[in-house]
Amino acid sequence: MGSLTHFYGKIIFVSDMKKLIKLIDENLDKLLPVQYPQEIFESMRYSVLAEGKRLRPVLCLEAARVFGGKIEDAIPTACAIEMLHAQSLIHDDLPCMDNDDYRRGKLTNHKVFGEAVAVLAGDALLTFAPQLIIQKSNLPSEIKLRLLEEYCIAAGAYGLIAGQAVDIESEGKEISPETLEFIHTHKTADLFKLALKAGAIIAGAGEEKISAMENFGQNLGFAFQICDDILDETSTFEELGKTLGKDKAAQKPTYTAIFGLEKARTEVICLLDNTCGIMAKHGIQSGVFCEIIDGIKERATKC
Amino acid sequence: MGSLTHFYGKIIFVSDMKKLIKLIDENLDKLLPVQYPQEIFESMRYSVLAEGKRLRPVLCLEAARVFGGKIEDAIPTACAIEMLHAQSLIHDDLPCMDNDDYRRGKLTNHKVFGEAVAVLAGDALLTFAPQLIIQKSNLPSEIKLRLLEEYCIAAGAYGLIAGQAVDIESEGKEISPETLEFIHTHKTADLFKLALKAGAIIAGAGEEKISAMENFGQNLGFAFQICDDILDETSTFEELGKTLGKDKAAQKPTYTAIFGLEKARTEVICLLDNTCGIMAKHGIQSGVFCEIIDGIKERATKC
Repeated sequence: MGSLTHFYGKIIFVSDMKKLIKLIDENLDKLLPVQYPQEIFESMRYSVLAEGKRLRPVLCLEAARVFGGKIEDAIPTACAIEMLHAQSLIHDDLPCMDNDDYRRGKLTNHKVFGEAVAVLAGDALLTFAPQLIIQKSNLPSEIKLRLLEEYCIAAGAYGLIAGQAVDIESEGKEISPETLEFIHTHKTADLFKLALKAGAIIAGAGEEKISAMENFGQNLGFAFQICDDILDETSTFEELGKTLGKDKAAQKPTYTAIFGLEKARTEVICLLDNTCGIMAKHGIQSGVFCEIIDGIKERATKC
Repeated sequence: MGSLTHFYGKIIFVSDMKKLIKLIDENLDKLLPVQYPQEIFESMRYSVLAEGKRLRPVLCLEAARVFGGKIEDAIPTACAIEMLHAQSLIHDDLPCMDNDDYRRGKLTNHKVFGEAVAVLAGDALLTFAPQLIIQKSNLPSEIKLRLLEEYCIAAGAYGLIAGQAVDIESEGKEISPETLEFIHTHKTADLFKLALKAGAIIAGAGEEKISAMENFGQNLGFAFQICDDILDETSTFEELGKTLGKDKAAQKPTYTAIFGLEKARTEVICLLDNTCGIMAKHGIQSGVFCEIIDGIKERATKC
């Protein structure tokens, strides 16, 4: 169905982002059926299938497409990345971590299934996701291994866990802009980078393009995180579906706390300009990327 | 430097198990150096390097050797399996799970590093381990992928997590022998099977041998678990380095609770006889396997 938008002066076709989201939702549901032990699978499904923007898997599918790959080939990996994202949310929300009661407008996983099941469901997702890449992808072994390596790096002590660990130990402390950058890089941007690089790898793109996607993901991820910090200060529970102002209450280090709202908005625009610059430099035409970039810009500047 | 033992009437050479344990300990230390964020890596190292029997990694190295593989080729995978084992112990010991204060004679991970770090260190190990298989093994891509697939199945909702989930939901309930078998299969035997199959896969053994190792691991793992249930009732804290009688206090389903001590001992001997039968059938000569089998038999029957 598509629509039209402006991209650096040129009018280009915008593929329907909703179609990709629907594709992801259908496949998440299909790839993660309820099995025994039922409660674990129900807990995994509860968080994975909770309504979400599906930004990361959509970025993965679209990166595969723009570099000439088949979207179908990227579906298991895209779903794996969304599962990894859900895993990190389940564990981050635990009482011993951020202690959140709501996520995506619903009670958090441990509020519904209890802490023990929430810990186990998160653990299970961490290996269920790469199992999908191994068993459900129609890709050469070398490509699968590269995807699994990127997955492990992004998920673990060099990626998400590093970001969450430094985030937690920074609570209530004055931190340097460099430490904040470390947290945002690993807690947020690493998953965007993984999604985009994975798409390029699946498409068989060269190292230069894979590296461009990493750079694109770093800028987009940062913009997304700073936008999140802005919304945490300026939005309402109804709009976001989660408890707000919690970062401030917990004295969490945020971009807005260090630099203020105005600088935060300028930075988001600057980062998003960078992503457009990367697209232009590499001749990437993607309505979906533009829609995501525009969406973040709109959210960051509307209030 | 090795010793002599009887194996089905024949006198065979026993390779030095202590040498393999030393090899594992040295490599665990080397493969998991302290990095930033320091506390996460220290927490991972605390549990991984805690003194242990190293049964699973030793089984992996020895399985590789008996099927004609090089022990060196199996070291990263053997260490990965020990890290997965440590991960499962860290999360199982959490207050929301089994709530244990001692493990291997030391305070449990969350008692030293706090719950948040313990959850994150466990998460980190779950992907650090397969990253080792990918990055540190000198093996063909097809072999690595097979190892990673077996790892994911054993670690997740079809393996360890399934066992732990049913174990937890069975607390205080009367369960059937079939449910107990499900728990023991997935919570304990799956890691033994993974270790033994992985060794055979690394050595390039055929499917019949890999399947024999699975069967060997199922019997050995069961024997080990029932022995553990026996010791939980009959041993002391000093002997085992963990709080005892907890299973009974928590009304955990154990073999001894359902069948009694005498039947438990008979069953251990029967299962260990099966492992010897599998070795004989497949012409496997391994002093290390015999030493492990004898060790379990001795522990199960001494008191």
